Amino acid sequence: MVNEPHSASSGSASSRSDGSSSGSEGSKDSSRCSTPVLDAERHERLREKMRRRYDSGDKWFSLEFFPPRTANGAVNLISRFDRMGMGGPLFIDVTWHPAGDPGSDKETSSMIIANTAVNYCGLETVLHMTCCNQTKEEITGHLQKAKHLGLKNIMALRGDPIGEEWEEEVEGFNYAVDLVKHIRCEFDDYFDICVAGYPKGHPEAESYEADLRHLKEKVSAGADFIITQLFFRSETFLTFMKDCQAIGITCPIVPGIFPIQGYHSLRQLVKLSKLEVPQEIKEVIEPIKDNDAAIRNYGVELAVSMCRELLDSGMVSGLHFYTLNREVATTEILKRLGIWKEDPRRPLPWAVSAHPKRRVEDVRPIFWASRPKSYIHRTQEWDDFPNGRWGNSSSPAFGELKDYYLFYLKSKSPREELLKMWGEELMSEESLFEVFTCYISGKPNRKGHKVTCLPWNDDPLAAETNLLKEQLEKVNRRGILTINSQPNINGKPSTDPIVGWGPSGGYVFQKAYLEFFTSSEITTALLKVLKTKKYELRVNYHIVNVWGENITNAPDMQPNAVTWGIFPGREIIQPTVVDPVSFMYWKDEAFALWIEQWAKLYEEESPSRMIIQYIHDNYYLVNLVDNDFPLENFTAARSVHPPAHCRQHNCHGARGARLAGQGARHSAQGSQPLCSRLLIEPHSLSCSARGTRLSLPERDSIRASQRPICYKLTL
Amino acid sequence: MVNEPHSASSGSASSRSDGSSSGSEGSKDSSRCSTPVLDAERHERLREKMRRRYDSGDKWFSLEFFPPRTANGAVNLISRFDRMGMGGPLFIDVTWHPAGDPGSDKETSSMIIANTAVNYCGLETVLHMTCCNQTKEEITGHLQKAKHLGLKNIMALRGDPIGEEWEEEVEGFNYAVDLVKHIRCEFDDYFDICVAGYPKGHPEAESYEADLRHLKEKVSAGADFIITQLFFRSETFLTFMKDCQAIGITCPIVPGIFPIQGYHSLRQLVKLSKLEVPQEIKEVIEPIKDNDAAIRNYGVELAVSMCRELLDSGMVSGLHFYTLNREVATTEILKRLGIWKEDPRRPLPWAVSAHPKRRVEDVRPIFWASRPKSYIHRTQEWDDFPNGRWGNSSSPAFGELKDYYLFYLKSKSPREELLKMWGEELMSEESLFEVFTCYISGKPNRKGHKVTCLPWNDDPLAAETNLLKEQLEKVNRRGILTINSQPNINGKPSTDPIVGWGPSGGYVFQKAYLEFFTSSEITTALLKVLKTKKYELRVNYHIVNVWGENITNAPDMQPNAVTWGIFPGREIIQPTVVDPVSFMYWKDEAFALWIEQWAKLYEEESPSRMIIQYIHDNYYLVNLVDNDFPLENFTAARSVHPPAHCRQHNCHGARGARLAGQGARHSAQGSQPLCSRLLIEPHSLSCSARGTRLSLPERDSIRASQRPICYKLTL
Repeated sequence: MVNEPHSASSGSASSRSDGSSSGSEGSKDSSRCSTPVLDAERHERLREKMRRRYDSGDKWFSLEFFPPRTANGAVNLISRFDRMGMGGPLFIDVTWHPAGDPGSDKETSSMIIANTAVNYCGLETVLHMTCCNQTKEEITGHLQKAKHLGLKNIMALRGDPIGEEWEEEVEGFNYAVDLVKHIRCEFDDYFDICVAGYPKGHPEAESYEADLRHLKEKVSAGADFIITQLFFRSETFLTFMKDCQAIGITCPIVPGIFPIQGYHSLRQLVKLSKLEVPQEIKEVIEPIKDNDAAIRNYGVELAVSMCRELLDSGMVSGLHFYTLNREVATTEILKRLGIWKEDPRRPLPWAVSAHPKRRVEDVRPIFWASRPKSYIHRTQEWDDFPNGRWGNSSSPAFGELKDYYLFYLKSKSPREELLKMWGEELMSEESLFEVFTCYISGKPNRKGHKVTCLPWNDDPLAAETNLLKEQLEKVNRRGILTINSQPNINGKPSTDPIVGWGPSGGYVFQKAYLEFFTSSEITTALLKVLKTKKYELRVNYHIVNVWGENITNAPDMQPNAVTWGIFPGREIIQPTVVDPVSFMYWKDEAFALWIEQWAKLYEEESPSRMIIQYIHDNYYLVNLVDNDFPLENFTAARSVHPPAHCRQHNCHGARGARLAGQGARHSAQGSQPLCSRLLIEPHSLSCSARGTRLSLPERDSIRASQRPICYKLTL
Repeated sequence: MVNEPHSASSGSASSRSDGSSSGSEGSKDSSRCSTPVLDAERHERLREKMRRRYDSGDKWFSLEFFPPRTANGAVNLISRFDRMGMGGPLFIDVTWHPAGDPGSDKETSSMIIANTAVNYCGLETVLHMTCCNQTKEEITGHLQKAKHLGLKNIMALRGDPIGEEWEEEVEGFNYAVDLVKHIRCEFDDYFDICVAGYPKGHPEAESYEADLRHLKEKVSAGADFIITQLFFRSETFLTFMKDCQAIGITCPIVPGIFPIQGYHSLRQLVKLSKLEVPQEIKEVIEPIKDNDAAIRNYGVELAVSMCRELLDSGMVSGLHFYTLNREVATTEILKRLGIWKEDPRRPLPWAVSAHPKRRVEDVRPIFWASRPKSYIHRTQEWDDFPNGRWGNSSSPAFGELKDYYLFYLKSKSPREELLKMWGEELMSEESLFEVFTCYISGKPNRKGHKVTCLPWNDDPLAAETNLLKEQLEKVNRRGILTINSQPNINGKPSTDPIVGWGPSGGYVFQKAYLEFFTSSEITTALLKVLKTKKYELRVNYHIVNVWGENITNAPDMQPNAVTWGIFPGREIIQPTVVDPVSFMYWKDEAFALWIEQWAKLYEEESPSRMIIQYIHDNYYLVNLVDNDFPLENFTAARSVHPPAHCRQHNCHGARGARLAGQGARHSAQGSQPLCSRLLIEPHSLSCSARGTRLSLPERDSIRASQRPICYKLTL
């Protein structure tokens, strides 16, 4: 995925600066891209990427999916895009079924699924489109919509005629070639166009040779590459390919691979495609037709050996898989072929979008790190994206938090599962602390259920966050409810499997970052520490409650770069910032998730719901950046033992007592200094016993009056 | 000079994001500057800077100069600006003498000297301007010109009337107050305006009280602050200041300090200012009037004690010095008062310009590091300056190399001195190698003269370059003629006295950089090493000759950031880049300096001149960046001993022999691996014996044919 810097030898270099003898003129031609090109592929169109692979001999694969029938199916398919995207497909494609309203705005339409793949999953995507039985206006409308959404590739198909006997329409779109011509005519070179090839000839063609001629017409009309119908023997494809070349088809031809995954699906496909299953396959399958696992295993074996033959032929560099929206078989085949990228290099530390207008984007606020789809949705109307610096961008104008975007972010888990993870009934704030602690630690909760997601994190802990696990577990147990964090990194190679990103030969850096919800008492105590001379410069903080009261020491409301990379021959890339302005938009989302994703699991007026509402109304959202990235931070402070003055105290917070008769709210027993060296002086984080939300003036007066300390929280 | 990040407590922060309850709206107000504010003062006007000092109680000083009479005097004055600028004056001012054509474009005019101070020396500058005997149009013209040049402050004066008896002109500018009104009327609030105050009353005023009223009128008309005429006793000023306050003058009043530096200058000044020298001073001075040193010492003592009284009064935070264009006395006084900044913090690693339109500038190519005035001159017509990234800027359009700009860069040394340093007569290329070696080492040359400058470096070696001294000395001796370099820095504190810059609490980084002229033979050998797998990613190179033939491995002609800083609460600052495009402009300048500044010292057709011409025509200008900044580079490779295969070889280059009958051109005896680990494999830098310039195809054929190696240069 990542492009290495290449040697620009005299030729290309001197073409830029054509060496006039001295002084004056000489090298005025300096039209260069406005942003360092970290990943050349991000700027290439599909046909260029494909050509680059053909030239380099690198093997690749692509994946075909069909649109889901239900909204839940869409949520699952999007997760599958994310997971299968990890393997590094060159592209995916989404099929088009005229009966299913494929061009509509429904969550399940081909158009919207392809849109999601491009914009939210960052996948190069080919949208299928059929033309028969449609008007020119309808087709142009679909194409315009696709272009607007950022889709750049169309698979131009005739589509199955409706009704048994199909007749050509005069002036209509009767063949795929008509659609190809129309696209080129109306949209010039904007789209890359793919067409279908039939290794055995199209079932309706007069002959194999006639079908080859049709294929050549499609290519001549403007198609950029060909994907074939499935076939069962490698010779079938190789013969077809030679025949294509013989009549002058020179564009890439990608073999379509159909892994047999079940008896039923095979039969259905054969019926649709009018292909005949070879006898040797039938003989194996018939006896095991009721054993799904056996058929799938056989299908994997068969596909692996056929793909090996294709790749070994030297005529094939890419393989196209008909996944039937399933993951296991295709992934296994790809892994066995060695073309699934186990460790895909990340061009940037966050998931890039594939919309053309976001090509230059290389800076984002850290807040949406676990919710990139929400960030993409909120910024989808931007005309320009920050690159180089966040501060260079025009004012962020994050859109409103609309319910609709939640579709992309809908939890993959059903309500019952969430209740098992997050508690059927909440008794106190501490019940919530436990949920967070279990999520961080990976340990099951009291009822024996693992907590694999939180409203702010739909996936289990990232490998990077795992570096902080031990420390985070301890703070969460004490009511510092962490929702985002990163360790400090002082110059790891850009190829580091956990924290690396960008081209090789570089070094990546991070400032430690911690974001959490916590009570006003802890916030007050924390602020006291943060304002000491020791932490004044070292730690930048933003503290805000749901009402928007905001405390920060950010100079001039400037963004703070917290992730950056230094690469050979490039300017600095700083893809993640803590930005005071967008934090105010993020806080709206972060607080809303308490209610939308968690509180609403419970009955209105129920104690569980009231507890969450209380937290929503009273807790502060805090973020902290440790600017001293070369120094030891909490990741390294594990060996520090609790100071001698750590003792257990009891403290019945007014509201804690109000909600339930539980005992000690916080127990300092066995506590360890934690965000310790980084954040907080162990002896100075004290907590007053006030049970009500502190308004800012009240907080100041507390600090001034030195109210009695109820207990010490050793952080 | 450097502004620390300050705590933006709830007040200021929440004014930006006024906390709406949830979702939507809330914090749209995000008008922030497009570049991280590294140094808030850079964006402030003089009156704001002054106000900030009054508020903080920080003591400051300013310096007054008069325009020089000759071009040489101008060169010297500009050097003095640079040196005295190091002490951190809040501003300097340049006087205006109507008889001297002060508004003209002459190198010696007040206007052009003030322009140089602002734009080339980066000093906040006040330009004096007088108004009597001038038309409104003339005055407006001067002001417009000043504004265009980036001058932002005017000292509005009446000026001395021409002729003995002066009469008011009807409708004319008769008093400074008329000029103040005119400036405010025509230029609104653009200029900061200073006016003169007379602690003893203006000699022509009816009375002290009447003069105070005149002063108040000037302030009411729009003056921002007052600088006083000189005085001899602190009480004089303090009484004056109280009287000013009593009649409602509230703007800053800066005492003008006149250090007595000689008998003659004192007498002249007294005559002009019509002031009386107190008896106690006369009594000391008269007996020593022929002893300049004694008078100056007395003057320093007197000024120090008077300044101490002023500062101790609590009424004075800034002192204005009438320097009489001399350096020693004023500097000594300032040092003894403790207000000369011994270690001025650099806001950026290069000398910033004070032109308002360059406020956002924070990236420059490294090539002009030793010639910032040339860079500023070449880019003076730019409307916009790169900030954040070099790549973000519009295409650089460096102007032509005009002779005129050389004025700012004229060597401070006369021809005879340059000949002593650079050789009365050059015998071979090696004579030049020695000049470079002596410059780097600081050791005297054969004739016993120290080499304190080179055409590319008008000042002795920078402290930073000194870190590389030992290594650079060795390569220069072997014909790698270095003109620019920096060591790698892997995260030193921003307060580091040698390599630090920017606000405190940060970390600065550098990639090692080396730029040199060298023969085509060494270039060929070097390229061979650079193209090995080991250095392919590690080292980026640009190699060019005077004819513009250019070899580089820079990816996509992108700039390479070689200096950057990470600061609390800010985005990354990367002030220095190696930019392939501007390098082609720099090479024109770098090659031209051989001829303009060196060859032209000798007679036409002389061997000395021919040798330099030969180098100009045949050598390559090479720059190398070591991207692996965390690894050991040549600065650390001192302990490496010469490899066993290092032996002495003789090699009479065809052209070396042609020029003079010298012996071994290069001697490898006693050589040490040097740019060694960083740059070059010791065993592989070999050098062919060809004596003619290699064109690029020739070079390739040499590499291909493995011509016999004449000698090995162990680098």
